[in-house]
Parts: sequence; structure tokens; C-alpha cells
Amino acid sequence: MSSKNTKTKQVVRVGLLGLGNVGAGVAEILATHGEMIEARAGVPIQISKALVRNKRRKRQGAAGSVELTTKPSDIVGSADVDVVVELMGGIEPALSLVTEALASGQTVVTANKAIVAAHGKQIFQAARKNKRDVHFEAAVAGGIPIIRTLREALASDRVTELTGILNGTTNYIVEAMAGGQSYASALEVAQELGYAEADPTLDVNGADAADKLAILIGLAFGASTTRKKLGCIGITELTSEMMMDAAELGYAIKLLARACRVEADGVETIQAGVFPYLVPLGHALSAVPDAQNAIYVRSDSLGSTLYQGPGAGGLPTGSAVVADLIEAARNVAAGTRGRSAMKSTGAGPKLAKPGDAVCPWYLRLAVAEKPGVLAAITRLLADESISLATVSQNQPVGGNNEVGVVLTTHPTSAGAMGRALKKMQRLKVVKGEAKVLRIYAE
Amino acid sequence: MSSKNTKTKQVVRVGLLGLGNVGAGVAEILATHGEMIEARAGVPIQISKALVRNKRRKRQGAAGSVELTTKPSDIVGSADVDVVVELMGGIEPALSLVTEALASGQTVVTANKAIVAAHGKQIFQAARKNKRDVHFEAAVAGGIPIIRTLREALASDRVTELTGILNGTTNYIVEAMAGGQSYASALEVAQELGYAEADPTLDVNGADAADKLAILIGLAFGASTTRKKLGCIGITELTSEMMMDAAELGYAIKLLARACRVEADGVETIQAGVFPYLVPLGHALSAVPDAQNAIYVRSDSLGSTLYQGPGAGGLPTGSAVVADLIEAARNVAAGTRGRSAMKSTGAGPKLAKPGDAVCPWYLRLAVAEKPGVLAAITRLLADESISLATVSQNQPVGGNNEVGVVLTTHPTSAGAMGRALKKMQRLKVVKGEAKVLRIYAE
Repeated sequence: MSSKNTKTKQVVRVGLLGLGNVGAGVAEILATHGEMIEARAGVPIQISKALVRNKRRKRQGAAGSVELTTKPSDIVGSADVDVVVELMGGIEPALSLVTEALASGQTVVTANKAIVAAHGKQIFQAARKNKRDVHFEAAVAGGIPIIRTLREALASDRVTELTGILNGTTNYIVEAMAGGQSYASALEVAQELGYAEADPTLDVNGADAADKLAILIGLAFGASTTRKKLGCIGITELTSEMMMDAAELGYAIKLLARACRVEADGVETIQAGVFPYLVPLGHALSAVPDAQNAIYVRSDSLGSTLYQGPGAGGLPTGSAVVADLIEAARNVAAGTRGRSAMKSTGAGPKLAKPGDAVCPWYLRLAVAEKPGVLAAITRLLADESISLATVSQNQPVGGNNEVGVVLTTHPTSAGAMGRALKKMQRLKVVKGEAKVLRIYAE
Repeated sequence: MSSKNTKTKQVVRVGLLGLGNVGAGVAEILATHGEMIEARAGVPIQISKALVRNKRRKRQGAAGSVELTTKPSDIVGSADVDVVVELMGGIEPALSLVTEALASGQTVVTANKAIVAAHGKQIFQAARKNKRDVHFEAAVAGGIPIIRTLREALASDRVTELTGILNGTTNYIVEAMAGGQSYASALEVAQELGYAEADPTLDVNGADAADKLAILIGLAFGASTTRKKLGCIGITELTSEMMMDAAELGYAIKLLARACRVEADGVETIQAGVFPYLVPLGHALSAVPDAQNAIYVRSDSLGSTLYQGPGAGGLPTGSAVVADLIEAARNVAAGTRGRSAMKSTGAGPKLAKPGDAVCPWYLRLAVAEKPGVLAAITRLLADESISLATVSQNQPVGGNNEVGVVLTTHPTSAGAMGRALKKMQRLKVVKGEAKVLRIYAE
């Protein structure tokens, strides 16, 4: 299949690996907007087959008229399929099927953040070797064209910060908590609404956002990383008390996936991780509602830009898949390929050590109500050269003469903060565990 | 110059028509980020020449080492230039030069909203006829990749609303007025900061935003229009009083360029125009600060998405030009062309009549302070089937027994509102001119 032969292609045939929520969305969009899509792609795009587990299951809407198969080989490596759309999720068998499709000369579109984040290098190498394309707009923030934007609009720019709300489930839960709900009841409502899975672990522990951040770091900074190398704290330890403190101090709490270019001693590194942050109420990210996603980018030429939209759902994610399909179809029809492979994997700066990350901090302690306590705490902080921005002491909590102390600091490294906290926990007057959160500052 | 010959091209040579603010930005970005740009384009991009009025003028930075010419033919139609970048602005000679460049087989990148808005059809026809590309990301909201997004990410979707803050100058002025400044002093500061031109007419009367809206309507709805066919009211009639009313009612005033798909009696039309709106404070567009631009899009599959960034300036606009250059260079180097021409010019729905536009309205009247006045006004409104949402009567203004009445209505057509206003102005109890503004509602 040389590129010359495909120049006369009149239809681009698509094979779907998976026909769940997103697959059905893709079928629906292709059926509803076929004419518009053909005008934009230059050729008609047709679904040739879909791989499913159970061929007998009844399917609604456009998905109902898709030809089904249970054999991957009917799609991957099949001469009847030009573009393979992988919507299975998880690592295997998705990774093997995608690699095999590329090796057999098929173009790949995938919505699978896990394989792109953990095995991106391998996939892009296979694409380059076989002169084929891999498109993955749907893998990060489905409804926001951030992959395209980083690869094309920001291609001529130098990104210095990328901060995103990349997980809609946690954004929904955190917003509900800010409205007064407990973590448990907010999670329950999110599950009822279909925002959260029955097992929400990968959402609430930040792992899902970290996978997406790893992909964006590759595109924005040319730095190679994976979820496991990124610092990551989820939202499970957030409390209503912290929500109220944040509001009083003029912040909203948001789970942010953040990467910043920093320079120290002439060496550039990327400080990156997923953490709950106190975000100043004036900042656009503080106001991202419901299960929406948003990505805030700062770069040399553009200054600051913001992209906001739905992060998940069959139609938004399906729409990102179809946008990739249109690009893929144009290339297949024109006989041009290899234009979309990620160029820079790992040529950029290295990741900073987690302890080197610098930001202001919020700190809440329960302490014994007696003289000298604040002095002891502030002395410990001063020993680590941590300077305080605000201090406030609340009413006694419980019946045991404990009071809440809320501190915010000036920018301090995570390492210094950790050391100070460790010493603080050893003080007799400090009761229970200290609560600590990062504060967003540019 | 067939596409086959260009396949072996090792450098893509660029000719600039104009070397002002944006041209200098382009030179700066190519000089600073050359390596990154080459990695992304697949070939080096070099500025071959720039057309200027005065060759002797001293130029700062990277623009200082660009070879200058005063003869357009050194660039347009020259065998030494692959891509012509038009940064002259205005209609002529820009339009003729762009058309000539396409006819001679050169690719065109333009930042000129005026020629794309008023003569887009002619330009895209020339591109198609000569199988060449025209890129114009920089023509609308320089720092926001909205052209690319509408053409690619939203290519598979059906847009139902596009509402933008497309003119940074007016956004700056309106925000300053909301902070208590008068129109005149806000304009003066905008001019001092370089946000507003010495002659700010095309900004403050909405014409600049209307040009940009006309371009976006073509891309988002496939409908053909020009600035002159769009309803357009600028910001020159806004007063501090209106600003205070808006804040009290829970709105911010913003100059919006807006186009909505509406259906009546089975016929789809586009309601579009540029008007100052009262925007609810919870809406993302109400909070767009300074001279920033933002575009809010609603579509069938994605739901609502928001794109925010700088609208003007040498580096942001230069960055958009360079993003286009990278795409153009990839195509020139790969010998593929004609992928980026705007497909649908005029195939989409027609524009609605201005009087058919429906929205809620804000209305401020100065009336004589005597019994029966409110009754007379509300009767006039009722005659046009306009129903009121809120009514409030202010303290007397001036020493002449006049009071301010502020009304907001439920959704009403511009036609009915106009007729009611006309009758109202004839009432003896209504003093001076009624102030009327649209209220943004989805």
C-alpha cells in the first residue's frame, strides 16, 4: 500500500476497537453530520466494522447498524480498514493491537490516555518506522482541542506553564464540597450522575489526571515522563474545614495538574505534579464549574491563554475522535502521512525533584490552647527559613481545649515544608495530623 | 513549480509584505525559536525578504537583519519566495498582492481581517483555482487558535452559537468604565497604553469586531456575510449609569460579537451582530479582563467550550502567523497543498433579518415624577407583547422632578422593542433618549 495508490481512494474505511459510550458517540456523529464531515475531510468516512465482546447485545442509535465482530484480525491488519480507532482503554490488548495496526500500514486514532502516557515512546517509534500516523486528541480533555493546540498553534512558542483541571469527576466533587457537602456524599451524587465510576480510585487519587499531564508535558515541553514519576495527591483527604478556610482566605480548592519550566543555576527543569491547590478567586481556573475541564497555558509569545470545555462523555470525546478521523482521512486520501507524529520525546528539560517544587502553602493545625504554642510553631518554620504570609486562630474545636490554627506561607520548597511538618508533628501541643495544601501562584 | 518538484525542498523561504509590529514579532519568533520550529515543521523556515516603505528606517531586534525591499515584485511572484506573508492591512494593495501571489503558485499567510472578511470568496476561489493555500489564523483574535479550532476540532460538530469578545481595545475601555472611569478618560488611558489607535473609530464603533465575526460565521456556520450586512453598535453610547445599573442587576457590560443558529417555521437562519450586552456575572465571558479576547462556542456534540487569550500585539499575532507558517512549510516541503482552503462559503443558512433577533432587554428611561407614568410605559410595552422581568425606579435626577426607571424584559424581538421605543419617545413624560441594551441569554 504505497502512498501513490491511496491517492485515488474514494472512501476512508474505519474500524472501531470497542463500541461503548465513545464508540457509539463516534457512530452517532458520523451518521448525523456525514455530509459536513465529508465536505471537510474531502472524502466520505465510513465505519466498516466494530470489535465488541458481545455481538448479541442490543445497541441504540447509529451504533445499532454497525457491523460487529469479536475477532481483532477483522480490523487490525485487515485490507478493508484504513484507520483503526482504539477505544478499549487499559494497557493490553490495546497496546499490542495499536502497534500491530501501525506495522501493517494502518493509521491509528486512539482515545486511550493510559497507553499514550505509559508507552507513548514505543507507539510513536512504531508510527515513525512504518511512516504512519497516530492521533490522540481524545486521550486528554475530550472536548478541548489541547493536543492540536499544543502541536500546531503553540508550535512556534515556548511554553513556560501548563496548568489544567484534567479530571471532571474530581472537579465536580470538589465544587460540591465547597458548597457544603461532605466528600462521601459528593462522591455518591457524582456516581449517581454518571460522573464517577463504581470504583472511582483512579479519579480521586489523581492518577487519571497524572496520566494526562504526562502526555501534555511531552507535547508542551518536549520532556519525557510517565504518571509514576510525577508527584500525585488526590482529593480524598480534603475536608469541609479546608473548604471553608479556603473561601475565607479568598481561594477555591481545585485539583490541578501542573507543570512549570523553572531555571536554577543555569539548568532548566520542569516542576510537575497533580495536587489539590488553593486557587485565587480571581483566576480563571478557580471558576471552572461542574465536571468541566480547563487548561491554562503561559508561553513566551502568547502570554496566557485558557481553553475550557467538557472533559468526558460519549459525544465530546467522540467529537475529538471524529476530528482526528477527519485529519486522518485527509491524509489517507491525499496519500500523505507521518505529519502528525510527536516529534520530541525526551529532548526537552528533565523533571525537577519533587522536593524542589516551590510554592506558597496553606497549613491547618489543631493545637492545645495554651500560651507559647504559636511561638513554638513559628520557630520551627523559621528554622527552615519559611516565612509566614497570614496567621489566624479559630475557636476551640471539640471539648478538649484544642484550637484550629490556619497559616499561609510565602513561597517555600516542598522539601523544607516537609521537614518543618515532620518536626511540628513531634510537638506535644500539636494534636492529630497537620493539613497542608499548595497555593497556586504564577 | 509542480508539487513533485517541491518534495525535495530543504528550506522554506518566506517573504514578508510589511515589517511593522507583527512582522517584527514574526522575525523575532523565527530567530529565537528556529530550532524548535524546524523540528515541528520538518524543514527550516527562513525570511528571504521584507517589503517596506522606508528601507532606511532603523529596526530593532531580529527585524534589523532582514533584507529589505521596496518593490513588491521582489516577493510576490518571485522564484525566491515560497510563502508570502501579508501584514499590510487594509484592502489595497493587499488584496491584489495576495491574489497575484496565489496565481503565481505561492502559498499565502495573512493577518489581514479586512480582506478576508470583505473579499474572502475571491481569495479562496483564487486559492482553489491555483491549488494553493491561504492561512489566516492571525486575522481573528491573534493569540487564540480559533480558526484552526473551528476548522479542525469542531469540523465534526454542528455549531449552534459563537459569541466572542473580539476587540481588546473596547474590552479594556468597558472594563475601565465598570471601574468608575468615564468613556473619554478610559479611551485616553487605552491610547496611552497603546491598546487604542490615535483614531479609534473602527474599534469603538464595533466595525473591527464585525469584520472578525463575518470571518468566523463563514467557518462556524458555512454562511457567507460581510461586516456591512451585520447589525453593529459600538460602545460610544455607554454611560457610567448603565454600568452601575448592570452591576446592580448582576451583570457586566461587554461588547459581544455574536452569532446563533435559530429555527423558525422549519427554516434555519443565523442571528448575528455586534452589540454591547449585559452578560450575567456567572458567565465566563463576563470576566474576560483587560484587552483579552475570548470566544465561547456551543455545539451539538461538545456542548460549551471557551477559548481565551490575547487578541493583539506583535508577539501573539506573530505567533499565530508562525503557526500558520509551520503548517504552510510542512505542506510545501511535503508537496501537498489545497488542504486548508475554506470549503463552505455560503452553502450554510442565511442571515436572519436584524429585527427578528430575539433576546431579553435592559431599558433605562428618565421620566417625569408623577402618577400614572409607569402605567403608561408598561401599557406601551404590553401593546407589543413585551413582558417585563424587573422594574426599578431610582432617586430623582437633576433638579427637574425627573426619576430614572430601569426595566428588564423577557425575550423580545428587536423589531418589537424598536416599535415600543419609538412610541415611548413620543410620550411627554419621557425625557431625553431612552437607553437600551441587549441582555445575553443562551
